[in-house]
Amino acid sequence: MAVLAPPGLSPALVQRHTQGACQQADDWLIDEQPVALVFNGLSHVVMMATPWQLDELAVGFALSEGLIDSLDALRGVEVEAAPDGLGHSVQLEVSPRAFEQIKSRRRQLEGRSGCGLCGIDSLQAFRQAWPRAAQPNATQIIPRLNTEAVQRAVRALPDWQPLQARSGGCHAAAWCSPEGQVLWAREDVGRHNALDKLIGALALQHPQPAVPHREGFVLVSSRASYEMVSKCARAGLPALAAVSAPTALAVQLAHHSGLQLMGFCRPGSAVAYA
Amino acid sequence: MAVLAPPGLSPALVQRHTQGACQQADDWLIDEQPVALVFNGLSHVVMMATPWQLDELAVGFALSEGLIDSLDALRGVEVEAAPDGLGHSVQLEVSPRAFEQIKSRRRQLEGRSGCGLCGIDSLQAFRQAWPRAAQPNATQIIPRLNTEAVQRAVRALPDWQPLQARSGGCHAAAWCSPEGQVLWAREDVGRHNALDKLIGALALQHPQPAVPHREGFVLVSSRASYEMVSKCARAGLPALAAVSAPTALAVQLAHHSGLQLMGFCRPGSAVAYA
Repeated sequence: MAVLAPPGLSPALVQRHTQGACQQADDWLIDEQPVALVFNGLSHVVMMATPWQLDELAVGFALSEGLIDSLDALRGVEVEAAPDGLGHSVQLEVSPRAFEQIKSRRRQLEGRSGCGLCGIDSLQAFRQAWPRAAQPNATQIIPRLNTEAVQRAVRALPDWQPLQARSGGCHAAAWCSPEGQVLWAREDVGRHNALDKLIGALALQHPQPAVPHREGFVLVSSRASYEMVSKCARAGLPALAAVSAPTALAVQLAHHSGLQLMGFCRPGSAVAYA
Repeated sequence: MAVLAPPGLSPALVQRHTQGACQQADDWLIDEQPVALVFNGLSHVVMMATPWQLDELAVGFALSEGLIDSLDALRGVEVEAAPDGLGHSVQLEVSPRAFEQIKSRRRQLEGRSGCGLCGIDSLQAFRQAWPRAAQPNATQIIPRLNTEAVQRAVRALPDWQPLQARSGGCHAAAWCSPEGQVLWAREDVGRHNALDKLIGALALQHPQPAVPHREGFVLVSSRASYEMVSKCARAGLPALAAVSAPTALAVQLAHHSGLQLMGFCRPGSAVAYA
């Protein structure tokens, strides 16, 4: 097919069945490739992601998983395509102190593989890893997440989802002003990745954002699981609105960490949990 | 609340916003808890899952991730609640040979944490891990996945989703006859887990099933990502129908492994990819 694929999409010839009829059609599939995150030359994790805006993904992941405390610890980021085209690696250079921290965390994991929860290898370690409650300065006022603003953002979100519009297989995470204006959005085949890309974009491109981190809210096209709440809390974001359901543990963690949480955010309705 | 929660659900008091009005309501949230899988005393992985049918989850994961080749390697499975109520561990006893295999795989990972892709720590290892093409015996005829059967199963699926009906936050994986009758279904907050529970249920409860593994198909309420196709292929299941989109890599792997793949399976329509 002589079609130039937009980044993040691949062309495909499919058979479309509708009401008993069947026809061949050109279609777009969302790209999913392995991405290795490498800190100071040390490979830390391989994940499946849509290979686009991977610098943001890597920086967002490092922040939202607590591998670095802030962007101050980051010296550089470089995305490299694997020579055989089967994936990418992102090389992150971090400060000696941050690297010591990452290595000591890895030493605790030696000989164990921890998947599902990054770096958590036992049930005991699990709750110790919960992000602390948000501690705003006395001068900071965190606006209450309001349903009108969420509704406005929900209605605007599809305009920020070009990959989803073509592939139907892609999640989005959007950064919204207190009034519900969508300021940024990022897409990825994985909902955690879309959120990490957004967190990375906020960190990299908005060192002094028009809407400070503590004042806007995040809208995600997916459910709000434990890890989505955890990532927002660790990145210092005050509120999460999700198009689909939260989990019981996500609601618990939102209470614990002081994050405002809404679910089932759809045109005309929303449910507040925390 | 003096409500006895069904397994997998927790009660919650929520604020429901609809068309500008707001009222408090009792609601159900899907449970999500850490679950540790322990092989012969060695902790292998901690994942987030709905704590229900965890024996099936553990056995399905062991099979679909290639940690054991078949149920012959399994000596026993026991689910233990953590004493502080913060999760579960599943103790699996496997044959000495299987345990040697798991340990040698873990030695390769020493000092590295591999999340996202279980046990894959480098891009090079990634494609080597692709499941081989299905090699049916000469006597086995694999029925072609047909759209009428998929339609029948899609229409029946909601009856098999009691946790989803109450929580709206839960995925399902169903095992269906060639004619599209849903024979089994499993639910979980994670789509990989729902599929692993189904694979475990098939292995544990159907040693000589009415519909042999090579003749039915799997229907999932989610998208068909790389890992969903990989798990089906490794478990020897011939066909996967997904309610939502496949990824480009999932379609590639389905071709490679000989798995039949349909996406966007909804009442009245479906798209065939492989």
